[in-house]
Amino acid sequence: MIIVMKQNATAQEIQNVESKLIELGFKTHPIMGDVKTVIGAIGDKRLLNIHAISQMQGVETLVPIMKPYKLASNELQQTPTIIDLGDVKIGGNEIVVMAGPCAIENEKDFITTAVSVKNSGAKILRGGAFKPRSSPYAFQGLEEDGLKIMVAGREATGLKLVTEVVDTRDVELVNKYTDIFQIGARNMQNFRLLSEVGMTNKPVLLKRGLSATIEEWLMAAEYIIAEGNQNVILCERGIRTYETMTRNTLDLSAIPVIKEVSHLPIIVDPSHATGNWKYVPALAKGAIATGADGLIIEVHLNPPTALCDGPQSLRPERFGTLMDELRLVAQSINRTI
Amino acid sequence: MIIVMKQNATAQEIQNVESKLIELGFKTHPIMGDVKTVIGAIGDKRLLNIHAISQMQGVETLVPIMKPYKLASNELQQTPTIIDLGDVKIGGNEIVVMAGPCAIENEKDFITTAVSVKNSGAKILRGGAFKPRSSPYAFQGLEEDGLKIMVAGREATGLKLVTEVVDTRDVELVNKYTDIFQIGARNMQNFRLLSEVGMTNKPVLLKRGLSATIEEWLMAAEYIIAEGNQNVILCERGIRTYETMTRNTLDLSAIPVIKEVSHLPIIVDPSHATGNWKYVPALAKGAIATGADGLIIEVHLNPPTALCDGPQSLRPERFGTLMDELRLVAQSINRTI
Amino acid sequence: MIIVMKQNATAQEIQNVESKLIELGFKTHPIMGDVKTVIGAIGDKRLLNIHAISQMQGVETLVPIMKPYKLASNELQQTPTIIDLGDVKIGGNEIVVMAGPCAIENEKDFITTAVSVKNSGAKILRGGAFKPRSSPYAFQGLEEDGLKIMVAGREATGLKLVTEVVDTRDVELVNKYTDIFQIGARNMQNFRLLSEVGMTNKPVLLKRGLSATIEEWLMAAEYIIAEGNQNVILCERGIRTYETMTRNTLDLSAIPVIKEVSHLPIIVDPSHATGNWKYVPALAKGAIATGADGLIIEVHLNPPTALCDGPQSLRPERFGTLMDELRLVAQSINRTI
Amino acid sequence: MIIVMKQNATAQEIQNVESKLIELGFKTHPIMGDVKTVIGAIGDKRLLNIHAISQMQGVETLVPIMKPYKLASNELQQTPTIIDLGDVKIGGNEIVVMAGPCAIENEKDFITTAVSVKNSGAKILRGGAFKPRSSPYAFQGLEEDGLKIMVAGREATGLKLVTEVVDTRDVELVNKYTDIFQIGARNMQNFRLLSEVGMTNKPVLLKRGLSATIEEWLMAAEYIIAEGNQNVILCERGIRTYETMTRNTLDLSAIPVIKEVSHLPIIVDPSHATGNWKYVPALAKGAIATGADGLIIEVHLNPPTALCDGPQSLRPERFGTLMDELRLVAQSINRTI
Repeated sequence: MIIVMKQNATAQEIQNVESKLIELGFKTHPIMGDVKTVIGAIGDKRLLNIHAISQMQGVETLVPIMKPYKLASNELQQTPTIIDLGDVKIGGNEIVVMAGPCAIENEKDFITTAVSVKNSGAKILRGGAFKPRSSPYAFQGLEEDGLKIMVAGREATGLKLVTEVVDTRDVELVNKYTDIFQIGARNMQNFRLLSEVGMTNKPVLLKRGLSATIEEWLMAAEYIIAEGNQNVILCERGIRTYETMTRNTLDLSAIPVIKEVSHLPIIVDPSHATGNWKYVPALAKGAIATGADGLIIEVHLNPPTALCDGPQSLRPERFGTLMDELRLVAQSINRTI
Repeated sequence: MIIVMKQNATAQEIQNVESKLIELGFKTHPIMGDVKTVIGAIGDKRLLNIHAISQMQGVETLVPIMKPYKLASNELQQTPTIIDLGDVKIGGNEIVVMAGPCAIENEKDFITTAVSVKNSGAKILRGGAFKPRSSPYAFQGLEEDGLKIMVAGREATGLKLVTEVVDTRDVELVNKYTDIFQIGARNMQNFRLLSEVGMTNKPVLLKRGLSATIEEWLMAAEYIIAEGNQNVILCERGIRTYETMTRNTLDLSAIPVIKEVSHLPIIVDPSHATGNWKYVPALAKGAIATGADGLIIEVHLNPPTALCDGPQSLRPERFGTLMDELRLVAQSINRTI
Repeated sequence: MIIVMKQNATAQEIQNVESKLIELGFKTHPIMGDVKTVIGAIGDKRLLNIHAISQMQGVETLVPIMKPYKLASNELQQTPTIIDLGDVKIGGNEIVVMAGPCAIENEKDFITTAVSVKNSGAKILRGGAFKPRSSPYAFQGLEEDGLKIMVAGREATGLKLVTEVVDTRDVELVNKYTDIFQIGARNMQNFRLLSEVGMTNKPVLLKRGLSATIEEWLMAAEYIIAEGNQNVILCERGIRTYETMTRNTLDLSAIPVIKEVSHLPIIVDPSHATGNWKYVPALAKGAIATGADGLIIEVHLNPPTALCDGPQSLRPERFGTLMDELRLVAQSINRTI
Repeated sequence: MIIVMKQNATAQEIQNVESKLIELGFKTHPIMGDVKTVIGAIGDKRLLNIHAISQMQGVETLVPIMKPYKLASNELQQTPTIIDLGDVKIGGNEIVVMAGPCAIENEKDFITTAVSVKNSGAKILRGGAFKPRSSPYAFQGLEEDGLKIMVAGREATGLKLVTEVVDTRDVELVNKYTDIFQIGARNMQNFRLLSEVGMTNKPVLLKRGLSATIEEWLMAAEYIIAEGNQNVILCERGIRTYETMTRNTLDLSAIPVIKEVSHLPIIVDPSHATGNWKYVPALAKGAIATGADGLIIEVHLNPPTALCDGPQSLRPERFGTLMDELRLVAQSINRTI
């Protein structure tokens, strides 16, 4: 950590800061510049409440040197994490596509969709049984009945399941049915929920919060890993900006950034990012070429009748064509789907 | 609702949309413009999943006419809601100041702080027993022990209590101790938690999410009110922008906007908004002059040693001076503190 | 245009609005809903100052139906615009890569760079002679001497030139040397400069403003086209968000959106978007797969000594490898480079 | 400046960076931490292109210690700058209100407005003769005829004039008429225009850019001051965020921040910030209580007929009432209007 002192800090103030740092267990290293003094503080004290030092007389600002996330960073673990789901692995050379409807509506349609996306090459089946909706008047999901339908989809196709959990009280229940927990964007900083799924051994798909920085996102992953569950899959799904022609702004730059600072795999959700099925194929291809380890795409048999997010869902046939296109893009960067 | 058809929509497409609208229970009213056709759809169907219509062939966009929040808006209730806490009322002519430390650390300091802020004119005592922290390594709060200390603070001063609840499983517990539930910014769209506090009859201080629109914030209030609990206090605490010299950007414009569209009281948290105690007095005065119904301000006996958010906390004496200044500002707009 | 009246608007207020609309040349079409009245106003009056109507008693809001840009939209021109620079065409099946240093520093290095990027497959040579820098103390460019060096680069390679113009007073001068004018992000709403280049017949590369909406960007193009110059190339270069791990957030969603609403070609600048050469290759590939018509990439012989934007510049050999990779990605979507 | 080396940087890489720093004229000061090495570089080299160092092998990041603006900061000049316009002074204890229409439309109305705002207590008359409009089809201003009308307004009232200049070619012309140049938000980084007004001796009202950081805003002021013109008045006018219920988000936090880091006066424009006259009075009061040195407010005789920005303009009588309210707020913080 570096402590920058104010231009007019007194010798006494500088000494007080040094004493405080030493008391906290740092070795100190003052540098007297022409105008300002800075103090280097040596020691990895990520767990200390060091921000209080910024309150001391004469201190201008603190500059942390170590990243605040440790387990999610590649400072300790250099090799990429590969999530092992048996037949399916996330984070290796193969790109994994997850597909299915926003919400589970009924068993017949869900199984038809499941069979179709499997035939097109999806490896994981998505579906929502607990839906966090911005309006209390919107469809909130079928809950446990929805989970049972998902299992029927798994049985019919052999696909793995991913579904969202929104309440600490439901973690145990959802754990009985799903293969991957999904933590939605609105719950990315629901720290209790993160800890709870961290205490299971199921992989967790962690969506980036609506306006989360990449650092905050990795700190959320840290909450899960700190409980002992290393199997975190990051999911970029668009961030909030002032632009209104898409629902969110898909931040594909997050892919190379994550690859530089973390060992965790990262997938992309172009459906929620754009909110418009017409933009999904272009951005799905873009995500693959940028280096995403996978995609999660909404597919619905008849989008105009969908109970949730119809406007962003592809029909199964459009999804099939897209998968063919994605295979070519994956090949062009020496990966497979 | 208005449906705007594309420039090249066919007569058949227009008719299909009309038929669908009629089927959903709307009366339709097409207007043929020189270039585009728009269809007026009469009927208040906030509860319908009308967005599917945007998926129909030939449709360019939907324009809702009714606000998506009903109970939080002043379309039905024109008179301002006044939250009645006995001696203290929030939303009337008197401006209410809530103050106290970010986190409860120990009983002695908490009571000393409580007595001090009471003497300065605060009416409600704040303190955190459950702390949602971005790092899993940061202090997470004293939990029930913290709540007990808060009650000791109430007994010593007669001040009412406000404290955050972060997990649906804790609502019952917190309800036993607090006078006002606080829902933090990170949980503004934790819909299960909103419903849970909506099922109690305690007032709820609902902080605006880090990047929530005013509409989403009112929709979150709607979740609480829809369960039967009308006692919602909105709290503006800064939104996320690209500016880095303050932690968040305090959006004081939200005050006149809320006053125009809603009947709920609104207070301001300058401490979390700026993250810097030096900016708190200026913005506290600004908030009052702009029309806020109250403030929530962090006060700590010795900010450099605070376990949480020291840099944004005022010392008790600075808080006392600020209260004197605020009284004058309140007077200048014909209100009291 | 649709005028939404307030819930409590009086019959007289509604009539006043209708009279005003008729006076402005609209045909009116009122729809009485159960709660609110809306008035459809027929007539394409993009040029009128209709927003004043929003000020009338009883009016809640105006909803425009027509897009505010006309010449830049594909409502009138459905076929894509292809910019014809002789050998090189922008907006067709072939993807065009522009490359070169941020600033022109000296003739020898510029020509070496030019030859190298040509050999790697670039078709257009970029370089800055007038540099808009955020600090008055930073290198501001070689001005006319720089333009002369650019011409030497063109003569040595046959590549076309693109360079920025920052002042209305320089348009005539720059016009003598360049093949394409560049309007930088900071000047996207320098309307006088837009009009001035609109009065030439040279193609204009119009960078998206730092926080411009897609609509504002197309309105800026409209300024150029309205003066008679149709040859506008849009350039996405990242928008400002709260994320700090990249300089800007590259908005690749803008590609399919522009393709849907406009006939203009769109290229992408991954160098300025990310500010970090390490992220440039991934996003260059992503941009191509998403559908960009071209790229503009910074290349410098020795980035650590660059007078401007070294950190985001690729070395020529890295650029060469990238071009090979891009060719494969282009192929995978049936385009060429 | 502090250079943070990567965790795995080699001794050779560290030495290369030190050598480079010494070559650039810095004294170096390496600190070997347990995990990373950081190098302190002593010397105020704001003018050097030091960012190239971030490109060197083994470098993780650079941390500047000195502020990039020097003349605009209060590191050199501690006393507040007071702009002296004869009778009127900006930046002292008295709060100065500027008022008038968005655009000059005709002499009669302008003079009527001028007399009215003067009687209400405004000290400076605003009006636009050159209007930067997002649409090429919108009213662009009366140009020199407008400036002449402004002078008639000054003669009729004795008020000082402020008006916008949008093109380097017009600076000389506008200089003949106005008392204060206004640089609009869209031109905040039109560096040529900044330099040009910097070469005059007239005060410059510098609006914050639509998405400018406070640091960039001060760097823009630096451009003006670096040419010899110290008379810069900063004007906060709202920044771009995702919120749509106001046109921009007024950032009143900028007031205490500017007061902490700069000696320049700062005023607030609630009219452009909100885009809605109904919100102007609340935010005008808020701005004063927060510590603004002045306000600039749009006033129009008949807003529904205004050629520009009618929806945000106050009628003269409402402005008069507001001035009475503002006087009380100013008094409450020991200032006058």
